[in-house]
Amino acid sequence: MDSKLDNLKYDSNGLIPAIIQDHQTGQVLMFAFMNRQAVKKTVETGKTHFYSRSRNKQWLKGESSGHVQHVKSIRTDCDKDVLLVNVEQVGAACHDGYYSCFYRKHDATSPDWAIEGVKVFDPDVVYKK
Amino acid sequence: MDSKLDNLKYDSNGLIPAIIQDHQTGQVLMFAFMNRQAVKKTVETGKTHFYSRSRNKQWLKGESSGHVQHVKSIRTDCDKDVLLVNVEQVGAACHDGYYSCFYRKHDATSPDWAIEGVKVFDPDVVYKK
Repeated sequence: MDSKLDNLKYDSNGLIPAIIQDHQTGQVLMFAFMNRQAVKKTVETGKTHFYSRSRNKQWLKGESSGHVQHVKSIRTDCDKDVLLVNVEQVGAACHDGYYSCFYRKHDATSPDWAIEGVKVFDPDVVYKK
Repeated sequence: MDSKLDNLKYDSNGLIPAIIQDHQTGQVLMFAFMNRQAVKKTVETGKTHFYSRSRNKQWLKGESSGHVQHVKSIRTDCDKDVLLVNVEQVGAACHDGYYSCFYRKHDATSPDWAIEGVKVFDPDVVYKK
C-alpha cells in the first residue's frame, strides 16, 4: 500500500475525518469519516469511500443513489489527521436532495436555520422510500 | 442563547467538528472541534473559538499569533452535527506558517506528501520558540 497513507493519523476508533469539496467551485459538499480501508479504496478506485459508524461498515458514496464522487485531489493537514478531498460530484452530495449537505445557514434574525439552495433530486424517488 | 445553536448535535464528548473556509476563495483553511461554549463565543464575538482536546480548554484562534478569523457565515449540514464557517483570515491559519493547514497534497508518483504553497510567516518568530 501507498506508504503516504500509512503515515496518516487515525483516531482511537481507527477513523480519520474527510472534508469533501467541489473541485471547480470550492463548495464544501459533505463531511464523513474514513477508515484505513476506505482511504485505500478511495485512492485505488478514484471514487470516495467512507466508514459508517452507525452501520459499522465501509461504503461507496453513491452506491444506492448513483451519486458517486470522482476524486480529483487528496490533501492532508499539518497534523496528518484530517483529509481534504476535491471531487467531481455526480448528481448531488446530500441524501436530502441538495447539492451540498451544508444547505442550512445561520441567520441571527431568524429563529431557525435558513435553507439555502434548491433540491437537485427527490430523495423519495432516488432512494425508493 | 440562540436556540438554533442548541439544536446542533454534539458528540459523546460534547464536541462538534468545524470546517473553516476562506470566504473569498473557498480554500479550506483548517479543521478543529468546538464545544457548546466555543460555538456560543464564535457567534457572539464574530471570531472563531475552538476546544482543544489535548489541552482540555477552549481557545480563541489567534490568541498567541494574532492570526484571528473574522466570521462571515456559519452553516451546518443535513444532520446538524458539523459546522462550516466562512472567515476572513488574518495572517495565516496554520501554525506551521502556511495560509492553509492543508498544504500537503497526495502525489501518486512521490514517496511522500508534496508540499504546496509558501510559508506566510516564520513560526519560530511568531510563537517565539
